[in-house]
Amino acid sequence: MRSTEAFELWRPPGSGDLLDITSPTNPRIKTLHKRKSRDSEGRVLVEGCRLVTDALKAGLSPDLVLVSPEALASPGGSALSALLQRLSSDVVCLASGDCVARACDTVSPQGVVAVVARPLLPLPETVRLALVLDGVSDPGNMGTMVRTAAALGVDAVVMTGACVDLWSPKALRASMGAAFRVPSVATGTWRETRELLQARGLALYAADGGAATAHWEVPWSKPSALVVGSEAEGLSQAAREDLDRGVITGIRIPLSNGVESLNAAVAGAIVLGEAQRQRQHGVNT
Amino acid sequence: MRSTEAFELWRPPGSGDLLDITSPTNPRIKTLHKRKSRDSEGRVLVEGCRLVTDALKAGLSPDLVLVSPEALASPGGSALSALLQRLSSDVVCLASGDCVARACDTVSPQGVVAVVARPLLPLPETVRLALVLDGVSDPGNMGTMVRTAAALGVDAVVMTGACVDLWSPKALRASMGAAFRVPSVATGTWRETRELLQARGLALYAADGGAATAHWEVPWSKPSALVVGSEAEGLSQAAREDLDRGVITGIRIPLSNGVESLNAAVAGAIVLGEAQRQRQHGVNT
Repeated sequence: MRSTEAFELWRPPGSGDLLDITSPTNPRIKTLHKRKSRDSEGRVLVEGCRLVTDALKAGLSPDLVLVSPEALASPGGSALSALLQRLSSDVVCLASGDCVARACDTVSPQGVVAVVARPLLPLPETVRLALVLDGVSDPGNMGTMVRTAAALGVDAVVMTGACVDLWSPKALRASMGAAFRVPSVATGTWRETRELLQARGLALYAADGGAATAHWEVPWSKPSALVVGSEAEGLSQAAREDLDRGVITGIRIPLSNGVESLNAAVAGAIVLGEAQRQRQHGVNT
Repeated sequence: MRSTEAFELWRPPGSGDLLDITSPTNPRIKTLHKRKSRDSEGRVLVEGCRLVTDALKAGLSPDLVLVSPEALASPGGSALSALLQRLSSDVVCLASGDCVARACDTVSPQGVVAVVARPLLPLPETVRLALVLDGVSDPGNMGTMVRTAAALGVDAVVMTGACVDLWSPKALRASMGAAFRVPSVATGTWRETRELLQARGLALYAADGGAATAHWEVPWSKPSALVVGSEAEGLSQAAREDLDRGVITGIRIPLSNGVESLNAAVAGAIVLGEAQRQRQHGVNT
């Protein structure tokens, strides 16, 4: 474990800069709150004992872990102690609770924050069920959908268009660690995304209020991708054109009581739940 | 329509007090942000053109509607004008945009806020599918679950234990107006709630990670109630005791990838989606 000197320095991999990380006035680690920094450094911030533990379980190795001695000594410190046992001592750095708090996005940080390499992967060659997020903009929805996808057996999450960053602190928290458990892929344009999906033989489906097919009428046991659009705008223009020309099949969650739409994360969950039921139960009726 | 005098007064029904509502320094209408005031006055605040329109569509008559002339004159003012056509002129009061904003909980209010009677109802005698919220504490989850319930054909939402108030501005917004479209009932203790449900012949189900029965194995076409517990704690102690002694049947959404739980609103949606599928599709396999 490294010292508790006030001006502990850290050199991010691939960077020539020494960062002053524990000075209360200069927590430059906090730059990873910004997507641009995450993208350029290929690193993400993981806040709190639970999430850092999830990252380790997923096989990720932190470059740096800031831990506050106050949190270690607190009533809930045993989980944090157990976490430290699993870490290489040369990445752990003791820092004041204030310093950890400043590095974090959360209002009530839990005394630990880690820097880990961002696990963005290429789309696996074999995919049976994919969730495609097309411009999902709310970090809570993004994280919740990834959590649901991991839980319900989705093989890959594909993020296309103007999606919020899954690796933002808020989306990562909403994923409850699931971001580390399901392969996620950031692609470029919708066209590129569609070609990646079609090359793997996936049939494409998207929610469309005017569709004739109910979501439970789709044979989800066949290789499939569910496309979920943005909360405010729905599908991107390019994806909508593919829907109009039948490249994507529109499906409908039948709605009652004059309700016009569902929350995006809820709509995705209902369809993925039906896909799971068919795949595990072996029927589609 | 009433005047734009700076010190417009309003006497809430059943109250002796004249309220100064349009003074920028004294927006006492804002007291309805607090549950205690909503409970004592039996009134709720409805913010924004869309939600006020939803309230009217549901047959609710506002006591008071504050509208800002600036919003009426703005590019998006036509929907607001259309809304005003539907209102009795003696409840509409022009007020400065600042005054409307101060009355609202939203950061970006849409120039209109209404006071309406809170439509809390007794549990209907005939219920085929109920959603029971047992201590749901997050207003976003509360509103989202009510929106989902209305959309998927739930007959009644029952709120028991330490639930957040469905009529708080944030929960009401998350419900996207669905709070006005599905009967909702606040009950007292779990025991009272259970007796109300059982008196209507409803079979009780609740998510329980250790249960043997998958959620799709339940015959949802029979009169049923799904109980969803709090995000952090799950079911209340009293409901958990009923689960342990078999009065509530535990059901399980099978989870993969080491994910331990789902977001409460997502879990509720997946089960209600399956209930809807069975009820509309006429099968439970």
